[in-house]
Amino acid sequence: MATYKVPLKDMRFVLNEVIDVSKVTSLPGYGEVTPDLIDAILEEGAKLCENVLFPLNRSGDEEGCHYENGVVRTPKGFKEAYKQFIDGGWTNVTTDPQYGGQGLPATVGFVMQEMITSSNLSFGMYPGLSHGAYEALHVHANDTIKQTYLPKLGEGVWSGTMCLTEPHCGTDLGMLRTKAEPRSDGSFDISGTKIFISAGEHDLTDNIIHLVLARLPDAPGGTKGISLFVVPKFLPTPEGKAGERNGIRCGAIEHKMGIKASSTCVMNLDGARGWLVGEENKGLNAMFVMMNAARLGVAMQGLGIAETAYQSAATYAKDRLQGRSLTGPKNDKGPADPIIVHPDVRRMLLIQKSFAEGARALAYWIGSLIDIAHRHESQEEREKADDLIQLLTPIAKAHFTDMGFESANLAIQTYGGHGFIRENGVEQLARDARITMLYEGANGVQALDLVGRKLPMKGGRPAQRLLGEINGFISAHKDDAAMKEFVEPLEKAIGRVQDSALWLMQNGMKNPDEAGGAATDFLRLMALTAMAYMWARIAKASQAGLAKGTDNDFYNAKLATGRFYVQRVLPQTTSLSHQIKAGASTLMALDAAAF
Amino acid sequence: MATYKVPLKDMRFVLNEVIDVSKVTSLPGYGEVTPDLIDAILEEGAKLCENVLFPLNRSGDEEGCHYENGVVRTPKGFKEAYKQFIDGGWTNVTTDPQYGGQGLPATVGFVMQEMITSSNLSFGMYPGLSHGAYEALHVHANDTIKQTYLPKLGEGVWSGTMCLTEPHCGTDLGMLRTKAEPRSDGSFDISGTKIFISAGEHDLTDNIIHLVLARLPDAPGGTKGISLFVVPKFLPTPEGKAGERNGIRCGAIEHKMGIKASSTCVMNLDGARGWLVGEENKGLNAMFVMMNAARLGVAMQGLGIAETAYQSAATYAKDRLQGRSLTGPKNDKGPADPIIVHPDVRRMLLIQKSFAEGARALAYWIGSLIDIAHRHESQEEREKADDLIQLLTPIAKAHFTDMGFESANLAIQTYGGHGFIRENGVEQLARDARITMLYEGANGVQALDLVGRKLPMKGGRPAQRLLGEINGFISAHKDDAAMKEFVEPLEKAIGRVQDSALWLMQNGMKNPDEAGGAATDFLRLMALTAMAYMWARIAKASQAGLAKGTDNDFYNAKLATGRFYVQRVLPQTTSLSHQIKAGASTLMALDAAAF
Repeated sequence: MATYKVPLKDMRFVLNEVIDVSKVTSLPGYGEVTPDLIDAILEEGAKLCENVLFPLNRSGDEEGCHYENGVVRTPKGFKEAYKQFIDGGWTNVTTDPQYGGQGLPATVGFVMQEMITSSNLSFGMYPGLSHGAYEALHVHANDTIKQTYLPKLGEGVWSGTMCLTEPHCGTDLGMLRTKAEPRSDGSFDISGTKIFISAGEHDLTDNIIHLVLARLPDAPGGTKGISLFVVPKFLPTPEGKAGERNGIRCGAIEHKMGIKASSTCVMNLDGARGWLVGEENKGLNAMFVMMNAARLGVAMQGLGIAETAYQSAATYAKDRLQGRSLTGPKNDKGPADPIIVHPDVRRMLLIQKSFAEGARALAYWIGSLIDIAHRHESQEEREKADDLIQLLTPIAKAHFTDMGFESANLAIQTYGGHGFIRENGVEQLARDARITMLYEGANGVQALDLVGRKLPMKGGRPAQRLLGEINGFISAHKDDAAMKEFVEPLEKAIGRVQDSALWLMQNGMKNPDEAGGAATDFLRLMALTAMAYMWARIAKASQAGLAKGTDNDFYNAKLATGRFYVQRVLPQTTSLSHQIKAGASTLMALDAAAF
Repeated sequence: MATYKVPLKDMRFVLNEVIDVSKVTSLPGYGEVTPDLIDAILEEGAKLCENVLFPLNRSGDEEGCHYENGVVRTPKGFKEAYKQFIDGGWTNVTTDPQYGGQGLPATVGFVMQEMITSSNLSFGMYPGLSHGAYEALHVHANDTIKQTYLPKLGEGVWSGTMCLTEPHCGTDLGMLRTKAEPRSDGSFDISGTKIFISAGEHDLTDNIIHLVLARLPDAPGGTKGISLFVVPKFLPTPEGKAGERNGIRCGAIEHKMGIKASSTCVMNLDGARGWLVGEENKGLNAMFVMMNAARLGVAMQGLGIAETAYQSAATYAKDRLQGRSLTGPKNDKGPADPIIVHPDVRRMLLIQKSFAEGARALAYWIGSLIDIAHRHESQEEREKADDLIQLLTPIAKAHFTDMGFESANLAIQTYGGHGFIRENGVEQLARDARITMLYEGANGVQALDLVGRKLPMKGGRPAQRLLGEINGFISAHKDDAAMKEFVEPLEKAIGRVQDSALWLMQNGMKNPDEAGGAATDFLRLMALTAMAYMWARIAKASQAGLAKGTDNDFYNAKLATGRFYVQRVLPQTTSLSHQIKAGASTLMALDAAAF
């Protein structure tokens, strides 16, 4: 069976020793938030995840959601779990105190997202979507809308969705056709069909608040004529209750490869009443703010699944007796050795482990940057943090989800044939993880976002910030003999990034297909390098830990895992830089008909 | 929807222009087999695959197999399809004419396996297992057993299985516990439990012939005390009919990630009557002969799925309108361009295409080597062919199945969110492909087989043969300017193989964990290089084709695809050689408890 315990010790290590969460808790407005408070919250969250959400993961997959006459029923146990979830205040952790939220740092939200996803990705989709809708309304809606919806969404008694995709358009939202007709009272009648709407219909909450992209009658074509509307399933009464049924209905749910306990709905809008959020024709901008946050949420899903996959594989590898070590029996008295004696099994486990631990550090660092970007007194610091977030968002989204899926597959491989059997639970991780590479912008779209938008943005400032950050670390530790084994490979990798970026600038300007053809490889090159930077920081923190003389096993394991990363994973950067510089001519040579 | 047309043109190109199938048809005993006859057979096979097997693939997955009280029912349509399959003689294509077979070359069997698997992997499991059982009996059984079973297995009215795995042992068969007690009449009473038995019970045939590994009462422990038995579901009557029910029964079927229309059974043997096949205690050797053949069969499954995934993705990419080319609209009159205009989509398609076409050439070459190893007049040639087969078997099994799964995942990625929806058919390809990396020896076991057994075998002769073959090609074409772009990268890659092999010899002898830690990377390094060799041969054949002046589009597309392979895939060999030479110390450093 799949295994998961919230890795609280490692979470604390990253928060306190790698990224130094006191930089977050000392920000203006976080007066009462201390590292100890954060710790207590995470411990409570861990109990819920381990005891309530994780045990429902397998049964939720097997049962799936049920659709009948427009009504969606979630699998057995989800309703009760959701009640415990909102009763514990878990939907309101990072939300605005003005609307009843707890106002904790985004960094804490990231840690919670990780453990929720590790436990039950399908379950996590419901509050995750609500949070996205909350954020979009919080930033873009007027006060009336905020007062109407934010408290309920924060409390979790109402949930939210993002209604973007239509049958003929996903990535290319410029083609969307859903129409909004103004009514005399300032609201709108909205009609159209949306697909792939996560949490579009379900039985967990009293009301569902849809954020819908649609076109006004006089709107320009393409992406510049799209507006954002809030469309509740039930129109709120003046007392703030769910009132009259609105004309937005679920026509079907999708039968999917994974996340089967998350309802994915076809939503039909037939003159549904909605209210404009933000400015006319600026809906896509508003949605993009939300999507960037959502992309980081999806990155956390990749990490979350990777952790569960790693723990499951490691547990199995220590238990399963099969064959003997190549260097002689290690379990003389048993009928065979546990398969963890085999170097190739360890190779798989260490790919998982070095990813999960490095990605955790990178993710929480990004979380802390979000808090800094929102709260720091210095504009310079806010801007710097925002630059880094812009750049790191597509990198984390694509790389973490690619690796979440890979980690799930390595767990299957470690289990052997038993990994293919549904009841053992690891194949579900792969099926669930697979969607994360697709939604919120497929990973190829993330790569284009990185190369086409984030690299050239602001004259290349975000990329310079990251390179500056990493080069600063290299300079500071170059003469530290104990850090040499981490700093040297990092320096080589950053050299490859710089070299490839230069190649991209020279060639991608002349011919955009050169940028497009290099994008995926370049994203991975940057991701592997960013991970190497985090591993260098982890190594530094571990050396400091060892100097204190307590918990040596923990710190030595960190150093050993980091060594594996730089020696056996980071070399991928050599091939990537060759592939990038081979150019796009071989990609573009064939006529479409030759495929 | 997933799309598949049998790639007859490419199959013919490989057979006639790349590997020169006349080298096979001119072997002794293939007197009446001509390239034209082969072509006619493939055309007939293609009709069956496209019109009967492929249309059942999606529904078979959705319905799955049914188990009730020991009886297994295959999905709707499978029985009728199987009848057409055996009526067409497709189970008897390569079997021995002495027992009613058609005696066609193994090469033809490989091509048929590819198209059957491309169409419906689950369906293909039933005749595939029968073929394995046939081969084992053909090589190892006595005349009585052969006369009893081979004609029926060949005809397909009876089917076969391989019963190896038990709950506590898969890879490590030395631990198996199933017992065989001798009876006074020379037969045996066999008792035990076997799991993961493909086609162990179903409704397609009158009888099921199980090949079962078990221990005799006085047998030595471990792998040297295992014997092979034939255990029919129904004891054959003297007239050759299915008679009395034997004590081997299906206790359950597994619920799996994929190949849901293939029954995977728990088989309980309770004093089931069996007959010894081959010598006492030599069962594992007999089974290994069969497993090597089965591993190549699984390699063909990887290729088969990769081809369907490629065709599906290419079709979708040409149809789906979304966004615009980075270099300006290519479909001015349409609302958007087809996504095949994007370099990153082409990158995915070309990984699939360059794999499928290169692997097809490698696979059919291996097929031809099997025919040569069986039939060539010269012992030297037979031995050489056998050496190459030994070496290439684990390489093809692991690499083709890794890439079959990757290709399926690239198809999902090309489809975007639509790829995650079951009815669109490509996610099934990934779920089905996933098992091929696990069964018949997980891919890590293949890598150990390569590094620990096949490399040192016969003083390294098989590896020398392959390097000699490739170096011979390089020397022969070194001065050919037109071949330079293929020969130079091949030469570099083979240099990395030689260099890594030397490293392995020096370090793996001292410490077997060094060999184990490098095995997977080394296998992939060899596989990518072997594929580069096949691409160089394809390029040579294409240049010859162009010189004839007909079908230039086809040959030019081959050259373009080959260029993509050497420029954008083959560079992975650089990283792999770094990773190999980084050694196993980082793998072995952590205590098991630290995982």
